[in-house]
Amino acid sequence: MPSDLEYFFEPKGIAVVGASPQANSGGNHLLQNIARGYRGPVYPVNPKHKEIMGLKGYPSVSAIDGPVDLAIVFVPAPQTPEVLRECVSKGLKGAILENAGFAEVGAEGKALQDECTTIARQGALRLWGPNCMGLIDMNKRYVFSFMLPELWDDLYAAGSISLIVQSGLLSAGFIMSVVSRKILGLAKVCSIGNKSDIDEIECLEFLLRDPDTSVIALYLESSAQGRRFQELAKSSIKPIVVLKGGKSDAGARASLSHTASLAGNYPVFRAALKQAGVREADDFFEMVDIARCLEKGFDRRPGGPGRVAVLTYSGASGIVTVDHLQRNGLVLAPLSPETVERLKKKSPPWMPVNNPVDYWPAIEKHGVVGALKEGLSALYADPGVDGIIVHLFAGGGHWVLDPLQIMAGNADHRKPVLLWIVGLKDEAEQMKRRLEGAGWPVFDEIERLVKVMSTLL
Amino acid sequence: MPSDLEYFFEPKGIAVVGASPQANSGGNHLLQNIARGYRGPVYPVNPKHKEIMGLKGYPSVSAIDGPVDLAIVFVPAPQTPEVLRECVSKGLKGAILENAGFAEVGAEGKALQDECTTIARQGALRLWGPNCMGLIDMNKRYVFSFMLPELWDDLYAAGSISLIVQSGLLSAGFIMSVVSRKILGLAKVCSIGNKSDIDEIECLEFLLRDPDTSVIALYLESSAQGRRFQELAKSSIKPIVVLKGGKSDAGARASLSHTASLAGNYPVFRAALKQAGVREADDFFEMVDIARCLEKGFDRRPGGPGRVAVLTYSGASGIVTVDHLQRNGLVLAPLSPETVERLKKKSPPWMPVNNPVDYWPAIEKHGVVGALKEGLSALYADPGVDGIIVHLFAGGGHWVLDPLQIMAGNADHRKPVLLWIVGLKDEAEQMKRRLEGAGWPVFDEIERLVKVMSTLL
Repeated sequence: MPSDLEYFFEPKGIAVVGASPQANSGGNHLLQNIARGYRGPVYPVNPKHKEIMGLKGYPSVSAIDGPVDLAIVFVPAPQTPEVLRECVSKGLKGAILENAGFAEVGAEGKALQDECTTIARQGALRLWGPNCMGLIDMNKRYVFSFMLPELWDDLYAAGSISLIVQSGLLSAGFIMSVVSRKILGLAKVCSIGNKSDIDEIECLEFLLRDPDTSVIALYLESSAQGRRFQELAKSSIKPIVVLKGGKSDAGARASLSHTASLAGNYPVFRAALKQAGVREADDFFEMVDIARCLEKGFDRRPGGPGRVAVLTYSGASGIVTVDHLQRNGLVLAPLSPETVERLKKKSPPWMPVNNPVDYWPAIEKHGVVGALKEGLSALYADPGVDGIIVHLFAGGGHWVLDPLQIMAGNADHRKPVLLWIVGLKDEAEQMKRRLEGAGWPVFDEIERLVKVMSTLL
Repeated sequence: MPSDLEYFFEPKGIAVVGASPQANSGGNHLLQNIARGYRGPVYPVNPKHKEIMGLKGYPSVSAIDGPVDLAIVFVPAPQTPEVLRECVSKGLKGAILENAGFAEVGAEGKALQDECTTIARQGALRLWGPNCMGLIDMNKRYVFSFMLPELWDDLYAAGSISLIVQSGLLSAGFIMSVVSRKILGLAKVCSIGNKSDIDEIECLEFLLRDPDTSVIALYLESSAQGRRFQELAKSSIKPIVVLKGGKSDAGARASLSHTASLAGNYPVFRAALKQAGVREADDFFEMVDIARCLEKGFDRRPGGPGRVAVLTYSGASGIVTVDHLQRNGLVLAPLSPETVERLKKKSPPWMPVNNPVDYWPAIEKHGVVGALKEGLSALYADPGVDGIIVHLFAGGGHWVLDPLQIMAGNADHRKPVLLWIVGLKDEAEQMKRRLEGAGWPVFDEIERLVKVMSTLL
């Protein structure tokens, strides 16, 4: 059964209601963004203009003279019911309400939103929003959103992570942050706002079937649909990351006044997520960090505490890493005799081989590439090692290197290898881009790296 | 009593032993760096060159024909004892050994290091290092280090945070990261390496008396001098931040093999730090984040759990912030009736005033500057609020603003106000620079922000 969401992600014709020729307006951004990738017919609807951005303007949805599945609505909230009535009579399949002024502004707005939902339900029109940023399909370059058009000038290569974000304003901030920082490759983004009709469960079902999506990350507050969510997650072969809002008592109380949804019993929710194999994040960018590791294929689920090896050039960094490992329930992997033998060959005789592996003396003897490549390869081959943390330095002297030389040959069986880089800012950023592009996740902070490692293992 | 360290920080003449005309060598970097700010006589010592970088070259320390207090040594390790004997007979006061190949490379190196220490002790010569990056005084622009000269081309305005960093290689990575990222304004940096003579306690004593230093941050592994450290910290009016390595059992074992120092009983150490009013960090950049807040004057120590108010435009961000507050032992401040009254005046009538304070409706009514300025000012005036977290958005639309307009007037009694910014990358970075420059700490992650707030309160 094809999902109703197909009409949103691949509509035959889009009416932009509230389209505007005025620069820096949402109604203008929408037209600019849609024109980036969408090749079907676009109908600007605005009674004041006969032409907008070279397209014929329509006084109303009813006046549209071609095929049209979807309306994107950006008019003052009180005009929305009338627009939806026209959409229904015109036989449209869906409407994305990107305007605000509904349930989020109190009782009056809630009544208006309910009126819209009733009109839509009676007319078999599906609603997305209101109070949302719409949707994005990076692979098709569809941006059905009023977000700043400049954001898409220099699009990051599309990836396979899809996001579901509630909370209108957060979507704006968070999605803009993620896109403009080029932190990860996105497939689809669903900013679902007030969820008057389409909700996160329906989006999740759609993304689980979506061939472009390999990892799904979402922000959830309520667990009203917790059981359905758990079922979906359990049967999913795609990894899912959740940031749950309202984990603490105080947070749950705040959530009650935010979305009037019962944040529920967090320990129960957490156990359900864990049982369903869902990874959990505690912060917005941590969710993104976990998702980018899962996208790179690091999705192992061994039993018992994860056994980690640390390859470092600095005793202090190794020690601080070990402190964080223990705090996160991970253990230092005991190295196999074969691994110790291999590492000893590269080390000077006076250097004891332990975990953390201090490879600085080996670097002085064999150069940075030789020492690191052999060290990493030995740890990668050790079946008692579930994950590896490598500390790199970006700068001059010994350290002028192509990091991919070191990593080559270790990508076959997808043991998580997470990298921490310090050093000169520009050099570190360059090294980071090279590694990330080749599928190796890089972190700025040991604390975050170890937390993500514990989530992966 | 003037400290022996005066000879290191303000020497009358410097011999650079191992100075080199060859680009990209440590011995050349040293000369370039010293020339940046030091105006006293500099004597390159290298038997192969009569002139280096326009300065007269000397075949040996003995041959120096002017006043000289300090030698900076960058020769192969085995040549060091001979250099130190010359320093002693020439009557030098101190030597910074920036060369490596001593205790950090095993028993043979340890014997060489002990030989150097004996020569120095017998000759009343103080030793700094070996295996270190030397020292920096940002105010005087003294860089007595072989770190890359390009780092100092575009020096960040000097600040009042001083660092003490052990662990040779970590110093390099960490200090280069901090300096090149321009994260904070530094006063003095002490990279003390193997601590054959001068140790962190002596540096701490010096910095506690140093008029340019207002905050001291340091990485500590061993607590061999724990009691002295505690005494110094307790009597200090300058805030101190410590990152302790080897907190966990596993970390302590790793520390044993790193510096052969007993990391000791962490709970005892922690209690001692707490009693002495020392702030504790768990990661390298977290140490820096805490230090930059303390430098800005946020150094209150109220009793009881810190009561925090959150000013946000996004329900979800507010909820996630509250979850982190509870996890870090902070509580949501109950707002006073006066504060609620003030906030109500700016909010639409349907909007309940809670903490977190959702100011989005007020923004729609009064504009972002009006809403935020009044909201922050009300919370700032509330005696039941110990700290304030403000969420800002960097981007277009409503949000084109000079953030300082909002913050103005709230700096008088130094209640911690920490800001979280998401949004467009370039706009966010610009906003961050403006705020940081005016004394307001900005964070990228809610998790870190709340952790730092808990450390401050």
